[in-house]
Amino acid sequence: MSLDNPTKPHEALAAHLEGDLADVNTLIRARMASKHAPRIPEVTAHLVEAGGKRLRPMLTLAAARLCGYAGAYHIHLAATVEFIHTATLLHDDVVDESEQRRGRPTANLLWDNQSSVLVGDYLFARSFQLMTETGNMRVLEILSNASATIAEGEVLQLTAAQDLATTEEIYLQVVRGKTAALFSAACEVGGVIAAADPAQIQALYDYGDALGVAFQIVDDLLDYSGDATATGKNIGDDFRERKLTLPVIKAVAKAAADERAFWTRTIQKGRQDDGDLDEALRLLAKHGAMEETRAEALAWSSKAKEALDPLPDHPIKTMLRDIADYVVARIS
Amino acid sequence: MSLDNPTKPHEALAAHLEGDLADVNTLIRARMASKHAPRIPEVTAHLVEAGGKRLRPMLTLAAARLCGYAGAYHIHLAATVEFIHTATLLHDDVVDESEQRRGRPTANLLWDNQSSVLVGDYLFARSFQLMTETGNMRVLEILSNASATIAEGEVLQLTAAQDLATTEEIYLQVVRGKTAALFSAACEVGGVIAAADPAQIQALYDYGDALGVAFQIVDDLLDYSGDATATGKNIGDDFRERKLTLPVIKAVAKAAADERAFWTRTIQKGRQDDGDLDEALRLLAKHGAMEETRAEALAWSSKAKEALDPLPDHPIKTMLRDIADYVVARIS
Repeated sequence: MSLDNPTKPHEALAAHLEGDLADVNTLIRARMASKHAPRIPEVTAHLVEAGGKRLRPMLTLAAARLCGYAGAYHIHLAATVEFIHTATLLHDDVVDESEQRRGRPTANLLWDNQSSVLVGDYLFARSFQLMTETGNMRVLEILSNASATIAEGEVLQLTAAQDLATTEEIYLQVVRGKTAALFSAACEVGGVIAAADPAQIQALYDYGDALGVAFQIVDDLLDYSGDATATGKNIGDDFRERKLTLPVIKAVAKAAADERAFWTRTIQKGRQDDGDLDEALRLLAKHGAMEETRAEALAWSSKAKEALDPLPDHPIKTMLRDIADYVVARIS
Repeated sequence: MSLDNPTKPHEALAAHLEGDLADVNTLIRARMASKHAPRIPEVTAHLVEAGGKRLRPMLTLAAARLCGYAGAYHIHLAATVEFIHTATLLHDDVVDESEQRRGRPTANLLWDNQSSVLVGDYLFARSFQLMTETGNMRVLEILSNASATIAEGEVLQLTAAQDLATTEEIYLQVVRGKTAALFSAACEVGGVIAAADPAQIQALYDYGDALGVAFQIVDDLLDYSGDATATGKNIGDDFRERKLTLPVIKAVAKAAADERAFWTRTIQKGRQDDGDLDEALRLLAKHGAMEETRAEALAWSSKAKEALDPLPDHPIKTMLRDIADYVVARIS
């Protein structure tokens, strides 16, 4: 992939923010070092340099630049956001007992759960050091609130995931926590550090929130319909892990008695046999659950684009709009 | 135990700080709530209300009061410190695969590792929210630095624990990280929020640092010599978990070839048989490792008391001195 000839919206944004992104990468490398414990940079590098898209830190940089920021702290904030994201990935993989992430073995598999838990804690602490260096109290409030919302969403998912009583409302709370909270905070702090006016800061928050929700719904939809090569995930991972995501919640809501018994056995009780995934896919199709989920993702993407209206005209504004389209392009 | 007739130094301090401590407990209970995820207060309450001594938050309250603080933010800071401590306990028990803490089953045993990891993350985030509310940037620096030092110490312990090449210097780094960093930060932020002069803030830091080191050395010594009923731990837990603590580091340094082979087999390779703990205890006694470790703990306790010199005369100063004595009383 060459950034000189970007073909995808996030690549176009990366090319536009090239200098800032280089500074973020330098800062990340400096702050993931540890004088005493070399295990820390080893584990962190495995994840941070695995070729993630840096979408979240780019949102911070984009928001700050879009609002005319000319200082240097958007670099700190972007690195903060990437550290929080990396820490949550390390802990998520322990919680989910995952073995693959971005097509490579997870840190908990290559090292151990202990390293993933403690290095994640280290990155959380580092992220708080970085944000503190900005000296901006509003930014600290936003990012510490987002961290609490993320953790709360993860705990809620843990207890709600296998419970057939989980509603779309609870699903949305989980998604807001585990995904959208960091997207919205990443955008909002870019506006705050640029001292943008309140309506613009709110617009950035709303954009990030809707983009994050769309992003997660697409992810959950692709788990039942995607191309394993393109997504790096296998079809049905969520089904096997008994995670009650939006497509299944919709199918359960319309389930006849025998269908309900099927979901109770496979998701709630976790007794799965050969052919159960095919049956799940058949029920999702029968009740139009895939199509309805797809429509919701598209609606959130539209909401994200509309949220941008109060922001000034700027090449970055167009790119953010394109990213909102791109997030749902995989299901369009 | 009645606080009306305190017999131990930390009880005397608790009695002196009774009103403040009640406020801290109220704030802790309010902030461990979660609207969406009831699992969070369940897990937190199991640990926070298990009858810990609240030593760390008391140090914050004591430091602030000793320096004449008349505001309300020492309550926030004390709750912050207790949340950081609770979060590290939850994660430690996952990392160590512990089954008992304070004489009760651990959260990872009662619920699961997932809950312990994620509720720990939630409490970390809550602690950052609490400290942010004080609006004091210096306090945020100190506590975010301490959090990073704690996590770094834990990772260092993970890699150094079973390595016979671990020196007393590395041991001290681990102890400073996993224990002393929070003691010193707890004391220091009390002085900072009270706007004490720099020499007094340094004195509080030095007291907390030395107290924390003494506390951990005593803990490691009692693991080989204590009374299981009094400590809530079994003799030899560290040996069985292959943790290279100060007594063993001292014995390894003086080991003859056959003794070195014994430590290599039992600690580094983890092949332990019946009678090995007795042999370990014999070697620790033979080389005076227990006595030397005890002398070091006493020296750190003295250092803690001397550190208090620049602080104003005050009943709390005497109580802090008594606590430094009390920490080593169990081995005197």
